[in-house]
Amino acid sequence: MKPLKLGMVGGGQGAFIGAVHRIAARLDGKWSLTSGALSSDPDRAAASAAELGIAPDRTYSSYADMAKAEAARPDGIDAVAIVTPNHMHAGPVIAFLNAGIHVICDKPLSTTQEDADAIKAAVEASSAKFILTHNYTGYPLMRQAREMIARGDLGNLRVIQAEYAQDWLTEDIQNKQADWRTDPKRAGAGAIGDIGTHAFNLLSFVSGLETEALSADLHSFVDGRQVDDNAHILLRLKGGARGMIWASQIAVGCENDLTLRIYGDKGSIEWDHGNPNKMRFTKFGTPTQILTRGGAGLGDGNDRWTRIPPGHPEGYLEGFANLYSDAADFIIGSNDGQLLPGINAAMDGMWFISACQDSAAHDTAWVRK
Amino acid sequence: MKPLKLGMVGGGQGAFIGAVHRIAARLDGKWSLTSGALSSDPDRAAASAAELGIAPDRTYSSYADMAKAEAARPDGIDAVAIVTPNHMHAGPVIAFLNAGIHVICDKPLSTTQEDADAIKAAVEASSAKFILTHNYTGYPLMRQAREMIARGDLGNLRVIQAEYAQDWLTEDIQNKQADWRTDPKRAGAGAIGDIGTHAFNLLSFVSGLETEALSADLHSFVDGRQVDDNAHILLRLKGGARGMIWASQIAVGCENDLTLRIYGDKGSIEWDHGNPNKMRFTKFGTPTQILTRGGAGLGDGNDRWTRIPPGHPEGYLEGFANLYSDAADFIIGSNDGQLLPGINAAMDGMWFISACQDSAAHDTAWVRK
Amino acid sequence: MKPLKLGMVGGGQGAFIGAVHRIAARLDGKWSLTSGALSSDPDRAAASAAELGIAPDRTYSSYADMAKAEAARPDGIDAVAIVTPNHMHAGPVIAFLNAGIHVICDKPLSTTQEDADAIKAAVEASSAKFILTHNYTGYPLMRQAREMIARGDLGNLRVIQAEYAQDWLTEDIQNKQADWRTDPKRAGAGAIGDIGTHAFNLLSFVSGLETEALSADLHSFVDGRQVDDNAHILLRLKGGARGMIWASQIAVGCENDLTLRIYGDKGSIEWDHGNPNKMRFTKFGTPTQILTRGGAGLGDGNDRWTRIPPGHPEGYLEGFANLYSDAADFIIGSNDGQLLPGINAAMDGMWFISACQDSAAHDTAWVRK
Amino acid sequence: MKPLKLGMVGGGQGAFIGAVHRIAARLDGKWSLTSGALSSDPDRAAASAAELGIAPDRTYSSYADMAKAEAARPDGIDAVAIVTPNHMHAGPVIAFLNAGIHVICDKPLSTTQEDADAIKAAVEASSAKFILTHNYTGYPLMRQAREMIARGDLGNLRVIQAEYAQDWLTEDIQNKQADWRTDPKRAGAGAIGDIGTHAFNLLSFVSGLETEALSADLHSFVDGRQVDDNAHILLRLKGGARGMIWASQIAVGCENDLTLRIYGDKGSIEWDHGNPNKMRFTKFGTPTQILTRGGAGLGDGNDRWTRIPPGHPEGYLEGFANLYSDAADFIIGSNDGQLLPGINAAMDGMWFISACQDSAAHDTAWVRK
Repeated sequence: MKPLKLGMVGGGQGAFIGAVHRIAARLDGKWSLTSGALSSDPDRAAASAAELGIAPDRTYSSYADMAKAEAARPDGIDAVAIVTPNHMHAGPVIAFLNAGIHVICDKPLSTTQEDADAIKAAVEASSAKFILTHNYTGYPLMRQAREMIARGDLGNLRVIQAEYAQDWLTEDIQNKQADWRTDPKRAGAGAIGDIGTHAFNLLSFVSGLETEALSADLHSFVDGRQVDDNAHILLRLKGGARGMIWASQIAVGCENDLTLRIYGDKGSIEWDHGNPNKMRFTKFGTPTQILTRGGAGLGDGNDRWTRIPPGHPEGYLEGFANLYSDAADFIIGSNDGQLLPGINAAMDGMWFISACQDSAAHDTAWVRK
Repeated sequence: MKPLKLGMVGGGQGAFIGAVHRIAARLDGKWSLTSGALSSDPDRAAASAAELGIAPDRTYSSYADMAKAEAARPDGIDAVAIVTPNHMHAGPVIAFLNAGIHVICDKPLSTTQEDADAIKAAVEASSAKFILTHNYTGYPLMRQAREMIARGDLGNLRVIQAEYAQDWLTEDIQNKQADWRTDPKRAGAGAIGDIGTHAFNLLSFVSGLETEALSADLHSFVDGRQVDDNAHILLRLKGGARGMIWASQIAVGCENDLTLRIYGDKGSIEWDHGNPNKMRFTKFGTPTQILTRGGAGLGDGNDRWTRIPPGHPEGYLEGFANLYSDAADFIIGSNDGQLLPGINAAMDGMWFISACQDSAAHDTAWVRK
Repeated sequence: MKPLKLGMVGGGQGAFIGAVHRIAARLDGKWSLTSGALSSDPDRAAASAAELGIAPDRTYSSYADMAKAEAARPDGIDAVAIVTPNHMHAGPVIAFLNAGIHVICDKPLSTTQEDADAIKAAVEASSAKFILTHNYTGYPLMRQAREMIARGDLGNLRVIQAEYAQDWLTEDIQNKQADWRTDPKRAGAGAIGDIGTHAFNLLSFVSGLETEALSADLHSFVDGRQVDDNAHILLRLKGGARGMIWASQIAVGCENDLTLRIYGDKGSIEWDHGNPNKMRFTKFGTPTQILTRGGAGLGDGNDRWTRIPPGHPEGYLEGFANLYSDAADFIIGSNDGQLLPGINAAMDGMWFISACQDSAAHDTAWVRK
Repeated sequence: MKPLKLGMVGGGQGAFIGAVHRIAARLDGKWSLTSGALSSDPDRAAASAAELGIAPDRTYSSYADMAKAEAARPDGIDAVAIVTPNHMHAGPVIAFLNAGIHVICDKPLSTTQEDADAIKAAVEASSAKFILTHNYTGYPLMRQAREMIARGDLGNLRVIQAEYAQDWLTEDIQNKQADWRTDPKRAGAGAIGDIGTHAFNLLSFVSGLETEALSADLHSFVDGRQVDDNAHILLRLKGGARGMIWASQIAVGCENDLTLRIYGDKGSIEWDHGNPNKMRFTKFGTPTQILTRGGAGLGDGNDRWTRIPPGHPEGYLEGFANLYSDAADFIIGSNDGQLLPGINAAMDGMWFISACQDSAAHDTAWVRK
């Protein structure tokens, strides 16, 4: 296929997640970065675009201008990646949706319910597609686990646990990343928003279960920090399953330790992001099995979401790239998009953040969905 | 040293934990099993005793008779191990304490607060010592971790997590062990009593922190089961640390998966009972270290609680034996008993069980200590 | 930077390693696939090229035509990737070198010493650069280990062990990959060539030591197979270190299990390709450390060869991409190419294969280099 | 059962392996330590015996006196444990065998072929039983693996690899253990004798295959050391399997790292002494399974060699105790002794040591059995 044309808002020099989106888009050759409003500062926007080989006439410092101009061009972009800080998602997302351009947006959706509702309305009103990059759902074994659970390999689900632990905010540090991610205005929340939403999304995606209520114990361990840096959360899910989430940015020794464990009455799985090419699977009463990405025992199609033979590790970028690859196929109509996180997952994430904050404000009282 | 004389109440043919106590007592050669009321059924008591080489005149079918007779003998037992089901601890414990005979009692202390209070009073009134076999505290690396935390290697503690997960009650089974352990009358509680108390005790022992309050989500997943088989518990500890406990007997694929993780502002440790000879230790900002039982970097005395060189694995029985070894030394005065769980740990365990049940009865409301 | 223009010989529809090279070239945006002789069959060459977006006028079915035409174009390719089966490396490699076009060649160099010598002569006669894709050297922790050893962190090296074990040839299978890889004419050797050379190259690269002699026990366990499928190899290295290599394609349960262990008189490292983002490092007499890709304790520059923060796993494709990224930098002069395997590593690999075969033919007699 | 009476030769104060034998003998309550010639120094012998509660009239400083006296007593010992340094095995072993007393001897059998032959003759002439404590064969999962292989679960064996690596002799140290274990006269050999024999025995025991020939590259890395401290050994086994052994005492970071890997044409197993309660098992073409000691999938009798439920780790002492337990049962006739290493295994170990030394003396030439 001829690569689709991708635009990007945010992600200029010094940004982190923008570069990740670009690699993910490049990896399978289905996208070509063609346009960008990489910064609201014109000089920085231009310099960043030049570095990336974006033509000057496709370079903007205003997302509004970009949406308008690209929509008007016959060779305009097919989709745009929104990689601005959380509080600046709504503007560009809505602008591009309204312009009929597909949107791939970083998570979480926004920092306020108002923004989230506005985005939702725009999605519903637009013919364009909306995808939120909960990239951990792109890991082949997470998709495999979702299928196994959907077809009953684990039986009725009982206990679901997800953790996302980091230690980079153990102390009170100042840098570009820490500044906005611990700023209530720009981030909206701390650990629960930045990484807790990933854990919550992943457990929802894989289990296929909706959460009915949660009870959250949020805490900020570092003096002066205005957002949570540690969260212990209890869940009650549809059908009676119980859940637990731990999100922390002060867990010394943890880098990006995302784990998922799901126990049913017939079997269980356990997955650790640190070694994402393996997954424990146990059928009750039989020896534990180690399933491998694309490996033995996964049946036909075990290589659907992977590029190289089992035993050659894939990682974070390949999982992220699966979202971009699927998004391209979804846009051209060769993929039904069922595995891609969309507006519903995005709104669930918003509920998760606000419910955690409500619960914590009321001494961990249960908050129903 | 000449072995001390040990008696045993409970632990006749078909019992599980009695045999473990006997191996633990034998392992270091500091105890000799001399007397027993191994069953309340006289024939079974006699047959069980004969198998173990206990002389007929030291064999009883009544613990009361045994306490009386052994106290009266010049060669009477030095201590007694109480390994009856939980609801039958109080009687023999009090009888032997009153007779001035040291007591080593299996956990949890009892099934009712009344019994627990009575035992506590007996302990306080007696010159004899009382030890509760929270055996996981006997693992060398758990004692090492306790020392490291006490001297500040981890800094101020922030997050403490313990898990004890099994799967043997995944389905509704009937056998001797399952019968009494799922019977509210004989066990007092389900997962929280049988294994949750171990997790709670271990995190208290290692962290050195008292719990101030807990919130517990107890559930019974198996139809008709009258005790909890899964518990998610939030903790608030003295000094501001937050904690989490998971105890489960329906976690498919888990055998006896006890883990402990403690995070401070300077470092963290992580230990897994499945491979108890290793412990992760990370000082913030430096590479994770793998400490080994008796191994490099532990300093002088790294071999205090171990019998064989590092790399030769020790396990559950050796940890249990450390309690018996220390108990012998404590009784003869060559050990101060500081590492041995006593009546305070026992009463904490009783609080833990009842607080979990209270919290669960009130929709996981916080219960203060 | 503006992407360099890459051509490719081999790698048409149905090939494996060609697709890997293309992803590796794309990942960092430093290369643009512009030209190809993807198959010697004109129709297949054209169809393959079309799929990849290569313009028809840059599509060839003869590498000789391609070398000539591309060298003549003002916008001709900067470098070519040679991904044909081993016995067809020499022709295109020499043609492009002679045309002054940089060559990135898959390993091993060739199937005959004659071809290897001819390539070497062409490299020496050409102003163009030559790179052999021993891609495992691209893993950040392998480069880290090389630096640690070079600066003496492990002291004098004593024991070096590498393994590369697979199981895909456990039985006598027929498919495109198995057919040529077990054909003595097209592959030149079995396990020792396909994967043993990787193990040998990696241990040489990381240790910095040359091998002086080897003794090889080659075997073919599958009836009728004409190349080795299992090899146990002893090494003697400069300075007195001893080594061992195991290469196997019949090791049931192994996918692509490449491991490296190096022991010096002051420290040791251990790395496992299955989880390439971690490496064990032990200084004698101190606790083992777990170093992580880009993580704590690696010092300045710990992020030189990685794209994302520690804890987000990278894998095989990222390691491979490091070679393409470095090659681009090397070509434009912003990298000295010291870490890139070149003709010397390629000739060492040829010696390794032939020495193994000589040794095996003489009952594992030592073969000196 | 009433405990059997055990004597001990060697193992006085300051010794290592004697204490291990005593714990192993005590653990299951089948033995009572009744007599000893714990040292050839009378004062040390008496003091050591007193510490262990051995009666003065059963305490000797001469093994010859002990054999004679104990054989003459109506309550004489049933068996004797010989735990002297290797070069002092033959004397007491033969004396007790000739006296009709069963012998449990530490490994390796001796330091000279003459001694070994004399012991063998004594075994054949005696009605008493002879057991060599290759204790790693006592691990339940090693016995399980032996059964699995014997019944064909792995198919025809192809590749067999064992490693035993330590680092305690990385430098030139002086202490009681190092002194005799690096003394050619007292130890007979270095790493190959002390730990290599264990690796060789274990692979023979589990695979059920005899070795036909070996090629050994022995080396001593520490200046002035007179015995090997590192060995790389190639094996050829009956039926065509190939093998590899690595034994090292200078492998920094290794404590007592014994591993075993066996690959057949239908399946494979992998076991690591560091975590002996788990074993990898893969049937070709299916997901890898993790078998656990006494756990799911092992079939009836999965608890034959274990005392506690799966998930509670057992270790080195329990494995060693299995030999003592079986030995007691063998002596009283309730066990056929098939799993106990006897004189044949002992002689195989002697061949292994001398063949390694012969091979090394001839530039790793193959030495046939």
